[in-house]
Amino acid sequence: MLSLIKSPADLKKLNLSEMAALAEEMRALMIKVVSHNGGHLASSLGAIELIMALHYVFDSPEDQIIFDVGHQAYAHKLLTGRAELFSSLRQLGGLSGFPRREESPHDIFNTGHSSTSISAALGLAVARDQLEKNNSVVAVIGDGALTGGMALEAINHAGGLQKNLLVVYNDNRMSISPNVGALSQYLSLKLTTQEHIVLRERVKSILERVSPQRGGRLIKRFQRAEESLKSFLISPTSFLAAWGFKYIGPIDGHDLDRLVHALNQVRNLKRPVILHVLTTKGKGFPPAEENPMAFHGLGRSKMAPSQGALQEIEPPTEPVQDKRSYTEVFGQYLIEAAKNDPKINAITAAMSQGTGLEKFFELYPERAFDVGIAEQHAVAFAAGLAVAGLKPVVAIYSTFLQRAFDQLYHDVALQKLPVILAVDRAGLVGEDGPTHHGALDLSYLRLLPNFTVMAPKDEFEFTQMLDLAFSLPGPSAIRYPRGAVSGRSQSQSGPLEVGRAEILRDGQDLAILALGQPVWAAMEAAENLKSHGLEATVINLRFIKPLDLEAILKAAQTGKIITVEENILQGGLNGAVSEALGRLDLKAPVKVKALGLGDDPVAQASPAQQRALLGLDAPGIEKAALELFGKS
Amino acid sequence: MLSLIKSPADLKKLNLSEMAALAEEMRALMIKVVSHNGGHLASSLGAIELIMALHYVFDSPEDQIIFDVGHQAYAHKLLTGRAELFSSLRQLGGLSGFPRREESPHDIFNTGHSSTSISAALGLAVARDQLEKNNSVVAVIGDGALTGGMALEAINHAGGLQKNLLVVYNDNRMSISPNVGALSQYLSLKLTTQEHIVLRERVKSILERVSPQRGGRLIKRFQRAEESLKSFLISPTSFLAAWGFKYIGPIDGHDLDRLVHALNQVRNLKRPVILHVLTTKGKGFPPAEENPMAFHGLGRSKMAPSQGALQEIEPPTEPVQDKRSYTEVFGQYLIEAAKNDPKINAITAAMSQGTGLEKFFELYPERAFDVGIAEQHAVAFAAGLAVAGLKPVVAIYSTFLQRAFDQLYHDVALQKLPVILAVDRAGLVGEDGPTHHGALDLSYLRLLPNFTVMAPKDEFEFTQMLDLAFSLPGPSAIRYPRGAVSGRSQSQSGPLEVGRAEILRDGQDLAILALGQPVWAAMEAAENLKSHGLEATVINLRFIKPLDLEAILKAAQTGKIITVEENILQGGLNGAVSEALGRLDLKAPVKVKALGLGDDPVAQASPAQQRALLGLDAPGIEKAALELFGKS
Repeated sequence: MLSLIKSPADLKKLNLSEMAALAEEMRALMIKVVSHNGGHLASSLGAIELIMALHYVFDSPEDQIIFDVGHQAYAHKLLTGRAELFSSLRQLGGLSGFPRREESPHDIFNTGHSSTSISAALGLAVARDQLEKNNSVVAVIGDGALTGGMALEAINHAGGLQKNLLVVYNDNRMSISPNVGALSQYLSLKLTTQEHIVLRERVKSILERVSPQRGGRLIKRFQRAEESLKSFLISPTSFLAAWGFKYIGPIDGHDLDRLVHALNQVRNLKRPVILHVLTTKGKGFPPAEENPMAFHGLGRSKMAPSQGALQEIEPPTEPVQDKRSYTEVFGQYLIEAAKNDPKINAITAAMSQGTGLEKFFELYPERAFDVGIAEQHAVAFAAGLAVAGLKPVVAIYSTFLQRAFDQLYHDVALQKLPVILAVDRAGLVGEDGPTHHGALDLSYLRLLPNFTVMAPKDEFEFTQMLDLAFSLPGPSAIRYPRGAVSGRSQSQSGPLEVGRAEILRDGQDLAILALGQPVWAAMEAAENLKSHGLEATVINLRFIKPLDLEAILKAAQTGKIITVEENILQGGLNGAVSEALGRLDLKAPVKVKALGLGDDPVAQASPAQQRALLGLDAPGIEKAALELFGKS
Repeated sequence: MLSLIKSPADLKKLNLSEMAALAEEMRALMIKVVSHNGGHLASSLGAIELIMALHYVFDSPEDQIIFDVGHQAYAHKLLTGRAELFSSLRQLGGLSGFPRREESPHDIFNTGHSSTSISAALGLAVARDQLEKNNSVVAVIGDGALTGGMALEAINHAGGLQKNLLVVYNDNRMSISPNVGALSQYLSLKLTTQEHIVLRERVKSILERVSPQRGGRLIKRFQRAEESLKSFLISPTSFLAAWGFKYIGPIDGHDLDRLVHALNQVRNLKRPVILHVLTTKGKGFPPAEENPMAFHGLGRSKMAPSQGALQEIEPPTEPVQDKRSYTEVFGQYLIEAAKNDPKINAITAAMSQGTGLEKFFELYPERAFDVGIAEQHAVAFAAGLAVAGLKPVVAIYSTFLQRAFDQLYHDVALQKLPVILAVDRAGLVGEDGPTHHGALDLSYLRLLPNFTVMAPKDEFEFTQMLDLAFSLPGPSAIRYPRGAVSGRSQSQSGPLEVGRAEILRDGQDLAILALGQPVWAAMEAAENLKSHGLEATVINLRFIKPLDLEAILKAAQTGKIITVEENILQGGLNGAVSEALGRLDLKAPVKVKALGLGDDPVAQASPAQQRALLGLDAPGIEKAALELFGKS
């Protein structure tokens, strides 16, 4: 049936039972494709009926639907003419795992980072009114994203402006990890207070019966008062009403009939409305329903058929990694360290699993903090812990840590507080694509006064750096990539010293400078260059701040430098090295070739493909070297 | 009397009437000192009694008090042993205008940027419990700061953890500008709903009277229900109760007796409590009470005695600037532009006055948006406007724009949306000191793909750049400093071209590179260097992204380059120029001398003093040039 749906207009021709069948078809397709390609399965399974109802009632793309974070939007892709392309999901040249304006006019706003949808939708609503159009604007946001401060900033502004704006609150009582914080507790609590409604009715009927006259007046006042009390009495999101939204719900987010009915109703309200929809993450796929966290974001081929109830799932096409990931090394290290040092605390922003801290949370619940999707608070909270003499470690993905840039500067760096940042998913992340690369951290972390910023080339160096971080009186950051450690854990190097590079290889023709994982591609390239008669120095800088100026001088003496970094080309490794070169008293000019991420974001693909595309693997470095010698 | 208060312990010896007298003495001193030195008068006047009561009840520094933003904390400084130093407020070597741990053990956490206090206080409270201490932790936060998303993130986390933590909500119904957004409207609204309480009592009494039996059961259930309803019924901050805080208030924030009583009460609650305190911004100084916005942040000597009721205020010691500020040029430009183009919209984050947009807000209220202290939302909201085809201009101070770094990247840059950033207060800001310098923007804006980033050397170039920004298909940023334009508005240069520098002076010995205001110091230094026999090329780069590589090549040919920037030395102008040099095929090495802001933040002082300290004025540049030639 899906093959008949070329656009949302085709959906509108279906009757209810056809729509139900279509939902199941989409469900099966998602499971099948994600089992191969990886992706965000649980969220997308949970939002199928909701998205069908939205497209049934609204007229996309004139009516504008924005999906917060965007990993729940697969059904939206399937219903807007992209079903045939769906098997290319998250592949090089294929469909993105997130809404992308480049991909379809139905994708109104690119998402990937959490909690942006209400801001963007409000902008669209304001513009619609200025341009005297008449369309609807809808933001679809989950309960997890609502713990992000910027969503609350937007709600505050939207409630004040009173524009025609629908916020669909997709409540699966779960963001990525189970939700944390008071708001979540409150929401669950209030779901059980239906007794309030019953009570209210009985009070009313008694007043009516026993004191017809005075009761009448009282009831009138009671009803007026009720209007403002109503949302509180019946709604778990009354706090949203405090912000000027009309609240409707909660309704069953898998009941197409009720969804369509409710959306038709709110469509005509022409004011800020919250429609509260209850959904089940992983809906229709028992393993995911039972363990939605495990089925939140799946790597390529991580889901073996035995895990699924649907037998058509084919086996993985790539072997499962057998080496430990940096994330696991970090998690294991921190458990050991915390055993010996009661001052160690771990903080994560809705990513206890993703950052390898699950076990830490089990073992040391009193010293483990999941603050929700709230990176700003996470960093300032850690600053508070550090002021009091504790040893906070904040583990956040590089791309999400961008949210806390100001807190890193204002609350940690300027105060020289010993907060340790574990910057996971630094560099290329693969299939999640442009919005998720850890593309900027070398550059922005280097701006922070008093920070020590480092990246390990292997597992051994990683633990050395963690040891060092705990010994420093000030703040530090360690950036490390998604995926497996190098496996070359027997580092030959001695103890780690702040700001001291490691010379891995000596050669007089050129120098290749790197830190972190790219060091190994640099070494491989250097070996290969021998066959071209070129001897390369390879330097593992280890620290981008402070920088080892002696090592830079040594590299400069070859006259040719290649810098290799999984970071944007501005202000990171190449920037640091270039700045240092200008300060040296050089006898001859140095030509620098910078390898890294350019202004064009790297499309989704496997990390290996991405590295090859960008010339960040050994052949790419080799090619750059040959170009420096005019031998391309 | 103030001279007797060496520490908060001395305050505890006073009786109520002595405390009242002390309050007036502090009030007069603040007015006097701020009239000379500039400062945040209205907030600090409004918080005098509150801070006295806090120090009377709590035992600082064992009990830890954190002041959000920190510009209300002058009374705290006066009561904690710094009264004698108070006349040095905001002067070089004197007291900071904000709490500073370096300054006093009573300053627990450095503030300056908004909405951080609850995060930090929660960190302290968690640490206290882990370290088995028994002190109180207090965050003092204004209603403006509560519009910042990170404060709400912290409230969510704090409510969940249920630690002993007091949040004093200092409600003057005003942040910097009058408060905006639904929350503010809601808070005002609810203050009038005392009728709810009356109604509730009457319902109860009728139930009791008319149906003793069934009424009794109902009342019991009613009371249970009431517990959870109570805060909603009586409190304007019921939404905070939804987050697990116990709410107390509102109480009069200028009534010392009631304040002391309430604080003694909450001190023993050992759970998250919000104490709602109503204060008047500018309290006790009629001009500031009438116009708190004008008396929010005062520049040095801006307040003439005629404005004040207190005759002891001495006349300004520095002449008032008679040139227009960049801020005013911007405001004027935007009004003119908006007259001809209905698509232009202006967005500010609680800074309509500070960013020169007051008049725009008056003339074009439908196209003017003050989103509250919510920079993240401001930028994503602008992205939404741009998607819909409008022309949003976001005016935010450089230092506060750091809060929106992720949104600039994720929501604007990656989507190539034509959002224009007016980055005010870029570079050194003077007396507000380290937390307020626009020290990073050249570096972090340069990381954003698809952005055009520029800085004008004068008023004329500024309007050229604004014209250009509106003509670009993608995003752009213009950074400009606090204070007056150069006054050299007759630029000799032709039309502005993206990525094209302006050669202001030709010389073969060295090249001085700058953009923005520092260009003039570079020119002056170049003239002075003639007397040392040195001829300098001076290049006004205009654009830091994209960079004019031809101009860099020309500079490189002199063999010696000085870069001058009011920005941190990493990744900004020096970074961009250094990176470019490495890519050029140079015949001889180039020595680069970088002038800018180092890792040590620049202390508060006048901007001229700060420039002199950092060698960013003409003598500083001259000295750097001579050093390059070994002539220091």
